[in-house]
Amino acid sequence: MLVMSRILSDQVKDQIGKPTLIEGWLHKKRLMGGLAFINIRDRRGLTQVVVQDKDEVEKLRGMQIGTVLRVTGTAVAEPRAPGGAELHDPELTILVPVTDEPPIEIDKPIQHKAENLDTLFEYRALNVRNLQEQKIFKIRASLNQYIREYLSEREFVEIQTPKILAKPTEGGAEVFKLDYFGKEASLAQSPQFYKQIMVGAFERVYEIGPAFRAEPSATTRHMSEVTMLDIEMGFVKDHDEVLNLVGDMTISTLKRIYEEYAEELKSLNSPELIVSDKVPQFTVAEIHELYTKATKTDTTQEKDLTPDEERWICDYAKKNHGSELVYATKFPVEAMKFYHQVNPDDPETVLWGDLLFRGLEIATVPLREYHYEKLVAQMKKAGLDVEDPGFKYYLQAFKYGLPQHGGCGYGIDRLVEKTVGLSNVKEATLFPRDINRLTP
Amino acid sequence: MLVMSRILSDQVKDQIGKPTLIEGWLHKKRLMGGLAFINIRDRRGLTQVVVQDKDEVEKLRGMQIGTVLRVTGTAVAEPRAPGGAELHDPELTILVPVTDEPPIEIDKPIQHKAENLDTLFEYRALNVRNLQEQKIFKIRASLNQYIREYLSEREFVEIQTPKILAKPTEGGAEVFKLDYFGKEASLAQSPQFYKQIMVGAFERVYEIGPAFRAEPSATTRHMSEVTMLDIEMGFVKDHDEVLNLVGDMTISTLKRIYEEYAEELKSLNSPELIVSDKVPQFTVAEIHELYTKATKTDTTQEKDLTPDEERWICDYAKKNHGSELVYATKFPVEAMKFYHQVNPDDPETVLWGDLLFRGLEIATVPLREYHYEKLVAQMKKAGLDVEDPGFKYYLQAFKYGLPQHGGCGYGIDRLVEKTVGLSNVKEATLFPRDINRLTP
Repeated sequence: MLVMSRILSDQVKDQIGKPTLIEGWLHKKRLMGGLAFINIRDRRGLTQVVVQDKDEVEKLRGMQIGTVLRVTGTAVAEPRAPGGAELHDPELTILVPVTDEPPIEIDKPIQHKAENLDTLFEYRALNVRNLQEQKIFKIRASLNQYIREYLSEREFVEIQTPKILAKPTEGGAEVFKLDYFGKEASLAQSPQFYKQIMVGAFERVYEIGPAFRAEPSATTRHMSEVTMLDIEMGFVKDHDEVLNLVGDMTISTLKRIYEEYAEELKSLNSPELIVSDKVPQFTVAEIHELYTKATKTDTTQEKDLTPDEERWICDYAKKNHGSELVYATKFPVEAMKFYHQVNPDDPETVLWGDLLFRGLEIATVPLREYHYEKLVAQMKKAGLDVEDPGFKYYLQAFKYGLPQHGGCGYGIDRLVEKTVGLSNVKEATLFPRDINRLTP
Repeated sequence: MLVMSRILSDQVKDQIGKPTLIEGWLHKKRLMGGLAFINIRDRRGLTQVVVQDKDEVEKLRGMQIGTVLRVTGTAVAEPRAPGGAELHDPELTILVPVTDEPPIEIDKPIQHKAENLDTLFEYRALNVRNLQEQKIFKIRASLNQYIREYLSEREFVEIQTPKILAKPTEGGAEVFKLDYFGKEASLAQSPQFYKQIMVGAFERVYEIGPAFRAEPSATTRHMSEVTMLDIEMGFVKDHDEVLNLVGDMTISTLKRIYEEYAEELKSLNSPELIVSDKVPQFTVAEIHELYTKATKTDTTQEKDLTPDEERWICDYAKKNHGSELVYATKFPVEAMKFYHQVNPDDPETVLWGDLLFRGLEIATVPLREYHYEKLVAQMKKAGLDVEDPGFKYYLQAFKYGLPQHGGCGYGIDRLVEKTVGLSNVKEATLFPRDINRLTP
């Protein structure tokens, strides 16, 4: 036989009448009389193969789903086959036999229900071979790519910052401790200090990388390891400039995903995308007021938004402003972090916005305090020891001049979850980590 | 005065005769008689400003390098100024005053010499404001971007894998230990297990992310936190297919960098790039033989390459093959990891190549053992407990069928170091970590 090159599943239809070689995994096997209909999976999808020859059918005996095969056959048009063509009169070569039946059915996705999550992750190594599941993670990869492209075009420089720190960036209890050559170190909760320092060099920087939070809870929104998009931009006129950039980036990335992955999102039962040109903004006080008026549940004394308010304001904005994205702005000063900027027009609030999408906070978008003396005062007020050598380098950047700047901490896992329409952030993550799960 | 928008430094030359507003950092200040010549730095470079008015010169009194300024003036052509234009008759607004003199001179780069490294990192937050230093990290960002584009075009799907693991991927002592909600966990040395698992889904995957090694040494080539490019590809015919992809990616990425950053590389005194169409290959045995013959130092009994041999073979390939990139292949079986594939044609060697660039190993490029039973046997031989739940999920992928695959672990920091022509991997890293340094 001629030496043939491998053809991928979506190219079989261009080979009609020609000898064709494919390689992939046995994805489905049906025996009908003396015939075998098999589906071979490769990185582009499925190819149906009709096996008639007795000896060839015999090769499949005992071969389970997952078996790696080479198939050479003749491509034949067949409208009912995936891709509109199938292979006839095949010669099979078993490249890697699988003789144990897999513990899950690979051609059927595990339903994304709360009670199935443990099964989903227990068999993740096999479950990712399911074509439905793969769509989620291709969308995830493209979300990352489109965001990078958006930021690159606007002169944001990608940085890579350390994940092992001498000093936690935000204090607090939710920090993993590490033995670093006999000294105690911590895992980074965010690149906060480093991205602010780097504003002093490039004005505009970003990073997509892991962040670690020792959250002792197991909820649908939290993991102990997350993928964060961190953005920081300098020489901004006001908070709106930052809110607009992050909002516009989100709108244009989502539009692009919904265009490129229209078919995939439909088959995943993802909701239709409803966005406007600009993300509507409501202050936290306005949301309390609107919510209280609408639901007769008084939240006007609440400082933060309740989870129900987050969902409610998203519904409200969708109905009244044609947007599934909403900004909640001007958070109360009680909730501020030491590096936030207090609102000069109203010292009871902070120039900090939360970006909500389909009922969930996906990004925090604050303006930073950039005056050295004020920052030192805010650190002291937060109970931090500004003399600590771990803070020295951060403060150096401010002492020697940083312009007004702001940015965001953006949860990539949450963005994927809500884009696809999943109900738990872990489903948007290949190998999630929480208090109960450290494997696979 | 009219409300003007900010103009960036490289746009000043297009504003000749017009009122122009710039914002940036005071980068240099010279007083000459009653005049002040100042350089303002922004994200695109420098603008020279000539300050004549007494009151304006007075505003600069006590203002140190780093002061954040707004300057409105008239753009005037001046061939000797950066960008070919400068601002005259300016009105200055101090946005953020800096009154302490910075501890390092920001307009002069810290010389990259071994004895200066501590100073380099002690003042990294300021040192990155130096334009020479910035070139290194812009090249680094572009190297990442070009590699991602190369891989994307070839259907590699970007994955994000966990950095906190129940079980170290390679065993060994060089693993950081972590307190994970009262249990012991470890930091990932590489995404090894996960990228192999994901071959079963997408065939081709990659990740650029942090990897952690508790290397107790402080050398010019090692850090305890590195940025790795991990690639894995399935359905490869042989080792050469993997070597060729990684080689071609490197050649085309380097060519693109040398084209896009020709000027920057020249000003950094980087060497000229010498690459051929294909990376020349030498087996470890061949290198021993060539080196022994040339240097009269007998290394034929050595198993691994000595550092001097790495440098020597790079010089040899540069002179004789017109390539600063070289593959050392067929490493001795004594050095193998359990997931490597033993050479079927010579069981004394492993199908593993090292990519060397300008005297340094920058990537390890092996073919993997993909047969479940053989892998289990190799794990046992390596002293690993295959019954350990930490290994269960990895072995699951093999048990249910993985095709022949290979890939690489590629040191991004080392690639940047050698591309720019630095002499220590830490100089290619914004905030490096080693046994002695955990800050900034």
